[in-house]
Amino acid sequence: MTQRIVVIGGGVGCARFVKGVREHVARAGLDARIDVVVNTADDWWVSGLRIAPDHDSLLYALAGVNDTERGWGRAGETERVSAELAVWGTAPEWFTLGDLDLGTHIARTAWLREGLTVSEVYRRLGARWELGATLHPATDDEIDTHVLLEDGSSIHFQEWWVRHRAQLPATGFVQHGIELAQPSLGAAGAIELADVILLAPSNPIVSIGPILAVPGLRRALVDSPAPIVGVSGIIGGAVVRGMADACLAAVGIETSAAAVARHYGARGAGGLLDGWLVGEEDADAVSPLRDAGIETRTVPLWMRDADTSARLAADALQLAADVR
Amino acid sequence: MTQRIVVIGGGVGCARFVKGVREHVARAGLDARIDVVVNTADDWWVSGLRIAPDHDSLLYALAGVNDTERGWGRAGETERVSAELAVWGTAPEWFTLGDLDLGTHIARTAWLREGLTVSEVYRRLGARWELGATLHPATDDEIDTHVLLEDGSSIHFQEWWVRHRAQLPATGFVQHGIELAQPSLGAAGAIELADVILLAPSNPIVSIGPILAVPGLRRALVDSPAPIVGVSGIIGGAVVRGMADACLAAVGIETSAAAVARHYGARGAGGLLDGWLVGEEDADAVSPLRDAGIETRTVPLWMRDADTSARLAADALQLAADVR
Repeated sequence: MTQRIVVIGGGVGCARFVKGVREHVARAGLDARIDVVVNTADDWWVSGLRIAPDHDSLLYALAGVNDTERGWGRAGETERVSAELAVWGTAPEWFTLGDLDLGTHIARTAWLREGLTVSEVYRRLGARWELGATLHPATDDEIDTHVLLEDGSSIHFQEWWVRHRAQLPATGFVQHGIELAQPSLGAAGAIELADVILLAPSNPIVSIGPILAVPGLRRALVDSPAPIVGVSGIIGGAVVRGMADACLAAVGIETSAAAVARHYGARGAGGLLDGWLVGEEDADAVSPLRDAGIETRTVPLWMRDADTSARLAADALQLAADVR
Repeated sequence: MTQRIVVIGGGVGCARFVKGVREHVARAGLDARIDVVVNTADDWWVSGLRIAPDHDSLLYALAGVNDTERGWGRAGETERVSAELAVWGTAPEWFTLGDLDLGTHIARTAWLREGLTVSEVYRRLGARWELGATLHPATDDEIDTHVLLEDGSSIHFQEWWVRHRAQLPATGFVQHGIELAQPSLGAAGAIELADVILLAPSNPIVSIGPILAVPGLRRALVDSPAPIVGVSGIIGGAVVRGMADACLAAVGIETSAAAVARHYGARGAGGLLDGWLVGEEDADAVSPLRDAGIETRTVPLWMRDADTSARLAADALQLAADVR
């Protein structure tokens, strides 16, 4: 029977991990389908267009059209339109919109304006390539993240993230209206039918956090009979990539694999994690986390290529099988 | 006292003529301002973006950034985004959207979505360059032109114009909702204060026609104390450029300078024209049109460069002075 693997996350770290899962499934000849519940809370309206960074990183990476050197966006990108938008003043100069990427944003916005849901937009965008995985937005409802600053003001997450490189001290993150959001049918259905659930090494605060904050989704995960295994995005006290450390600091969580695991919580104590994979540099976290009810293993966490990514996926699935 | 020159029209023919007026004003050292009442009825929503061909032709030409070889769009244009939109299926393959041009469309759409009027969008777009003329939409209300076909169906004007090169036999043009449209304040004000009004050699049916069809604008022109002089876009029974002949045929008007003048009508008989400039090839039209009350003169109509365009503008202003 087809094994249903569900990955929770968004962005480049998640994309690499899902590619690893896809690669492992292919190499091992598994009868499996992969569903990804994607964060939508870093989506943004800019220049009248809806941008969806976490989704598009997944889309482009799974399609094999991503810029692997730069680490984001489309390969072979140019920025002619973006330069015009900067002159017109509708897009800030610090936010680069590639020309090929803008095609995606224009199409997405056109479809949203026609009344399509975010889920339907995901399907249309995903139909262009053989992704080997199905992407579902955590919610079809529009969520934008704002960052609370020390002076009491707030700015949009993308301004904080891209313009200020997450260097403005933050005191928290707010997703306005998330309390009224509903899980998308695809996300809810994937979790409902999951045989195994994997938390990608995505940003725990601004990528995985908002997914868990969509009313009903955390509960669906906690209540699922499927094992849940998370993969740390932090190795030896430092983020593998991105700026999750700034996000963790803002909400008072230490930048360590152990602290993130405790943030997610042990399944047996009402949390999410049955299992947790940390880097070999974090071996000292294993014993305390096991004592806390989270089966923790050290594995090679760095996803450098297809081999290492597939190996990490295999390790995650093995741990899920073992804790089942 | 500053002379207020108002030009009515839209598109490339109008752009060349307005450039001629601007050039003549500069060369003659006239104290004059130029206002252009621009057709909006060939505007179009495509791929979720608002396109305004008649306006943008004027904008780019007056700014000196138009593609003079191709005859439309921006100079140095590329089409990377357009190729993406064709793949996504949101823009038809027969409608080319240049990358630089798309910057304009994205900015315009962003501003419209923010709630700006078309007039305000014109001002923002026009502020980028020294245009030497102020552009006003005929109306801020959204108008799209549909073409009635012989089989009783209808298609959007742009599809008929661009995809079918105006070769599908048409039986008429409909601007849905135009009867509820109101003149923009800029257009109404310019006409109200005009010292001279010039009808550009634009398409009389689909560029000048919809301007006149905005309730109140034809009446404002007819009631204006300013002389109205038109410039024929037809020379020797053929259109100078574009496909106005197909539009004229659709509404049963002969493709001739005389027929278009009669379509506009003599001022003394409730029509628009005090004066009418035709090409030297159409000398036989002069006498009958004068008999009909339209002071008609033959002049060199071809606008090949700054000299010939400025000369034509001077001829039009001279005729306006003579019929005043």
